[in-house]
Amino acid sequence: MPGNTFGKIFKITTFGESHGKSLGAIIDGCPAGLPLNKADIQPDLDRRKPGKPEDLEKGLTSPRQEPDKVEILSGVFEGKTIGTPIALIIKNEDARPEDYESLKDIHRPGHADAVYDRKYGHRDYRGGGRASGRETAARVAAGAVAKKLLVHVTNNAIKIQSEILAPTKEEIKLAASAGNSLPGEIQLTIINSPAGLGEPVFDKLSADLAKAMMSIPAARSFTLEPKDLPEITEDSSCGVQGGISSGDPIQISVYFKAPSSTKARGVQGRHDPCIVHRAAPVCEAMAAITLADHYLRNKQAQLDCAPL
Amino acid sequence: MPGNTFGKIFKITTFGESHGKSLGAIIDGCPAGLPLNKADIQPDLDRRKPGKPEDLEKGLTSPRQEPDKVEILSGVFEGKTIGTPIALIIKNEDARPEDYESLKDIHRPGHADAVYDRKYGHRDYRGGGRASGRETAARVAAGAVAKKLLVHVTNNAIKIQSEILAPTKEEIKLAASAGNSLPGEIQLTIINSPAGLGEPVFDKLSADLAKAMMSIPAARSFTLEPKDLPEITEDSSCGVQGGISSGDPIQISVYFKAPSSTKARGVQGRHDPCIVHRAAPVCEAMAAITLADHYLRNKQAQLDCAPL
Amino acid sequence: MPGNTFGKIFKITTFGESHGKSLGAIIDGCPAGLPLNKADIQPDLDRRKPGKPEDLEKGLTSPRQEPDKVEILSGVFEGKTIGTPIALIIKNEDARPEDYESLKDIHRPGHADAVYDRKYGHRDYRGGGRASGRETAARVAAGAVAKKLLVHVTNNAIKIQSEILAPTKEEIKLAASAGNSLPGEIQLTIINSPAGLGEPVFDKLSADLAKAMMSIPAARSFTLEPKDLPEITEDSSCGVQGGISSGDPIQISVYFKAPSSTKARGVQGRHDPCIVHRAAPVCEAMAAITLADHYLRNKQAQLDCAPL
Amino acid sequence: MPGNTFGKIFKITTFGESHGKSLGAIIDGCPAGLPLNKADIQPDLDRRKPGKPEDLEKGLTSPRQEPDKVEILSGVFEGKTIGTPIALIIKNEDARPEDYESLKDIHRPGHADAVYDRKYGHRDYRGGGRASGRETAARVAAGAVAKKLLVHVTNNAIKIQSEILAPTKEEIKLAASAGNSLPGEIQLTIINSPAGLGEPVFDKLSADLAKAMMSIPAARSFTLEPKDLPEITEDSSCGVQGGISSGDPIQISVYFKAPSSTKARGVQGRHDPCIVHRAAPVCEAMAAITLADHYLRNKQAQLDCAPL
Repeated sequence: MPGNTFGKIFKITTFGESHGKSLGAIIDGCPAGLPLNKADIQPDLDRRKPGKPEDLEKGLTSPRQEPDKVEILSGVFEGKTIGTPIALIIKNEDARPEDYESLKDIHRPGHADAVYDRKYGHRDYRGGGRASGRETAARVAAGAVAKKLLVHVTNNAIKIQSEILAPTKEEIKLAASAGNSLPGEIQLTIINSPAGLGEPVFDKLSADLAKAMMSIPAARSFTLEPKDLPEITEDSSCGVQGGISSGDPIQISVYFKAPSSTKARGVQGRHDPCIVHRAAPVCEAMAAITLADHYLRNKQAQLDCAPL
Repeated sequence: MPGNTFGKIFKITTFGESHGKSLGAIIDGCPAGLPLNKADIQPDLDRRKPGKPEDLEKGLTSPRQEPDKVEILSGVFEGKTIGTPIALIIKNEDARPEDYESLKDIHRPGHADAVYDRKYGHRDYRGGGRASGRETAARVAAGAVAKKLLVHVTNNAIKIQSEILAPTKEEIKLAASAGNSLPGEIQLTIINSPAGLGEPVFDKLSADLAKAMMSIPAARSFTLEPKDLPEITEDSSCGVQGGISSGDPIQISVYFKAPSSTKARGVQGRHDPCIVHRAAPVCEAMAAITLADHYLRNKQAQLDCAPL
Repeated sequence: MPGNTFGKIFKITTFGESHGKSLGAIIDGCPAGLPLNKADIQPDLDRRKPGKPEDLEKGLTSPRQEPDKVEILSGVFEGKTIGTPIALIIKNEDARPEDYESLKDIHRPGHADAVYDRKYGHRDYRGGGRASGRETAARVAAGAVAKKLLVHVTNNAIKIQSEILAPTKEEIKLAASAGNSLPGEIQLTIINSPAGLGEPVFDKLSADLAKAMMSIPAARSFTLEPKDLPEITEDSSCGVQGGISSGDPIQISVYFKAPSSTKARGVQGRHDPCIVHRAAPVCEAMAAITLADHYLRNKQAQLDCAPL
Repeated sequence: MPGNTFGKIFKITTFGESHGKSLGAIIDGCPAGLPLNKADIQPDLDRRKPGKPEDLEKGLTSPRQEPDKVEILSGVFEGKTIGTPIALIIKNEDARPEDYESLKDIHRPGHADAVYDRKYGHRDYRGGGRASGRETAARVAAGAVAKKLLVHVTNNAIKIQSEILAPTKEEIKLAASAGNSLPGEIQLTIINSPAGLGEPVFDKLSADLAKAMMSIPAARSFTLEPKDLPEITEDSSCGVQGGISSGDPIQISVYFKAPSSTKARGVQGRHDPCIVHRAAPVCEAMAAITLADHYLRNKQAQLDCAPL
């Protein structure tokens, strides 16, 4: 049973293989009336994209060139959403399947190749197909729409910010030059979240944030942290009580394993020595999608005070 | 909360406005290993398409030219499905928004213009947007994939056939020449359906077929008919017992109201005098999607006889 | 894949076999703050219940005595809903499995016995199990909560009324005395429905009402009728345009086949000669659940005019 | 929008407030043919239950007496499941609302009282209502059914085992005697999981396990661990690759905050000094439910080799 949809009301469905014609996302459930255009989406895609000259120079990312230009195919009319599905599409312009042809019959260690073969029988072996980190571009595009919605409904108050806790850029450069890879950790802080988000008992905000983060490739650990405290104590509200946001800051951290494909291990292709720099906007996007979904879900918690 | 997805396991999500850049469908849940290419899909799209020269000559459809060429963006590799979302896209090449510009501030009688305005506040007024019959092109494309799946799993035995019960082509020509429109009725017969399809108690096969048909624009009535009998008697199995298919033929009829936009009423644009000829492949598509979904849903009804 | 849940936000899940210990419904998604107690539910259950003395006397129902007393196990505190699941339970007190013991290895014609056996392998043969009309008691209980919600939010304006179009009570008495059974038709009229209910494109209000009605045992046909008109014309709004309610009256009709178990056919047990009298409150309940669900779904269609 | 259901095919819905009449779970989607009776469920409930004499003596749990006797109301016939909803119910026999009456207008620090009041307006203040750890009894009951299913389909091979990493019983006794509370950590090991479980891209097995664990009250951190290794390295498969189980052991750890209600803080009622002993069977239950659901979901990944 398929698993390419996230969210219950603000629902995103992503599609597209790493080396196929294009990838994208359908957002079904964005309310009508939200101002939206490509310029709201492109900057986050640019942050996620590999091969930025300054990063290449620093040895921080792979040299794969992905222009990652988003196009809005539907759901927006005269600059505002109309309540119909928003289709976002990104063409794959620098797919080089020939880099991967040699991997056709090989299961790369640490990759999903073997489990995909076993589960599906028939697999797109070019660059990981759907298991590739490239799929996250669609999440980032959809996340930008979620951010726009949250910014609108909080009157510009909400902030979703990521910080890379480890490793530092210098460490990554060293690992890259040695053909190695490194794990890393990202901290995400959400300021001025609406209160009341999260649905007892399974769809707690913390539980859905955990799922959102752990669905990102290479994620291995999720922690809901007490704000401004070095350790988790019984006093900490963490901005989430009983699975419901209190309006206080929410702070989480996500740990990512080191990329499995490295030159030191003899794996060809264009790979990142550490994914935290590219994963950061993906974490923000998934947090925004989770919050936007719960913002809409929360609208039915209470009856209006007086009958209509 | 959005309503652009149909099905629980073989799930289709459609997107696209009548006069937007393109429309399409994402199928999430088609199993891996199904042979599939564009040639499996295009013939059904051609049947649904308006403006076929022979039909125009006969006054049966509107002159709008929609090449309706489908493209498969993902989910298929080396000629077979790989278990990932299948994105199907159709470009709108003959959209002429200027035909509709005059309707910007008008609510056409019998159309969804007024209710969309009230529900969403902001609306794509060009040709009905999502409420247009054009949206059904995406259903037909997805339905062709469902048919392919059903044909495969039944070893080519299943047949899903539509017949137009009323009106005859001659009647439609007369109505068209007078600038009028006509209602109509389609009968759908499913031969060699797998047995066991339908889930008690709400997702009966008959209930989901009813929803599928009644979701087609202009549908007004649905009947599960006894096969080969003029009336419904207590003996009739109708191929569905207690909401579950028995393997016997299933026969249903669907009634469509007459199109509301007619020249006689002074409505401009390119409109059909009767929609049954174009609705027939849509009915077949929705039946195929419903059956394919229930075929997959039925796989969990029983434990395998012996533990794995 | 299971099918015992109806609705997306106002979600009901029913459980219980005809001759098991009890049956019931869980409503997940009723907003907090709705006044609710048993007295809101019992009257509808009493209407659906068979064996009322006056009906027995008239030969209209089976003599099975089902007290059908509802109990509210959760979700209500100090007379109002609290936003948590509302569990409703009804004990089966007059289950007489011995009446059915002889049917253990028999598939009654016109019943779901054979398809259940084939689908599930293992079946509760006592009185139809889940396929029994007894399951609808749980729908009626949940429907009473939906009605309470709709009455509250429309400030007492909404009316959901059923009328039996055919057959008349005299006809049923005649059929019963001859050991026969009869089909029947119910007309449902909804006055003062909120406008804007129904979600394009698959979850049209008309499509979900069709599913709701066709999920009732023995339902065979569904029609969305033009109000106050003998036939369906192109002008008719039917209170639903493009699948969305306009606020005008909605009128539908539902056709039910004749019960398959009759004395004339030698089937033992306590059976109804015609089900329309008992099906009428079930139709009302399913309509109320469908409307309540869409009322809540509609809350996200538009952004609030100004950001919060 | 409600959040009391977990799972897509093996779906559980729980209901019941801490001090209401009863609580329970409906399992919709358990295949027919699974041997099942109360004795499969009661032992896990007994492990979760507070107030066991040996634990009381050791100061490990609160003195609240909850017999927690499960009853199966539906879905099982002659000792085997029949594919219909399985209703499990547990009566609340030792609810002492008077202990909590004084808390009616108080928001206990570290509890969900304030966020519930704000979200729902109207709240069951007796012992936390739905936010109470008592709700997890229903999860444990449903989890026992999931375990039975997994044991059956793996031919008795699967093991889902929890171990308490911290704190030791001695530490808890000390904290309890001082009126304090402690956080704790549980490690869960799954041996002989079926391979192929997990659905790209959002419903990765690791993501759904994270959600399952983080939905347990007081959970604060989730880690997918490399088996038998003190730290996460790039080589580790963790039994889950690309979100899909490989068949290798899966090891996870879950961190729980210290209970907020303590005597040292002046909070009355019967409370646990540390919840890990009672949380351990809940972790196992949620893992079993997650795996059972994904076992059934995986059945549609591939077409059968040959058409039926």
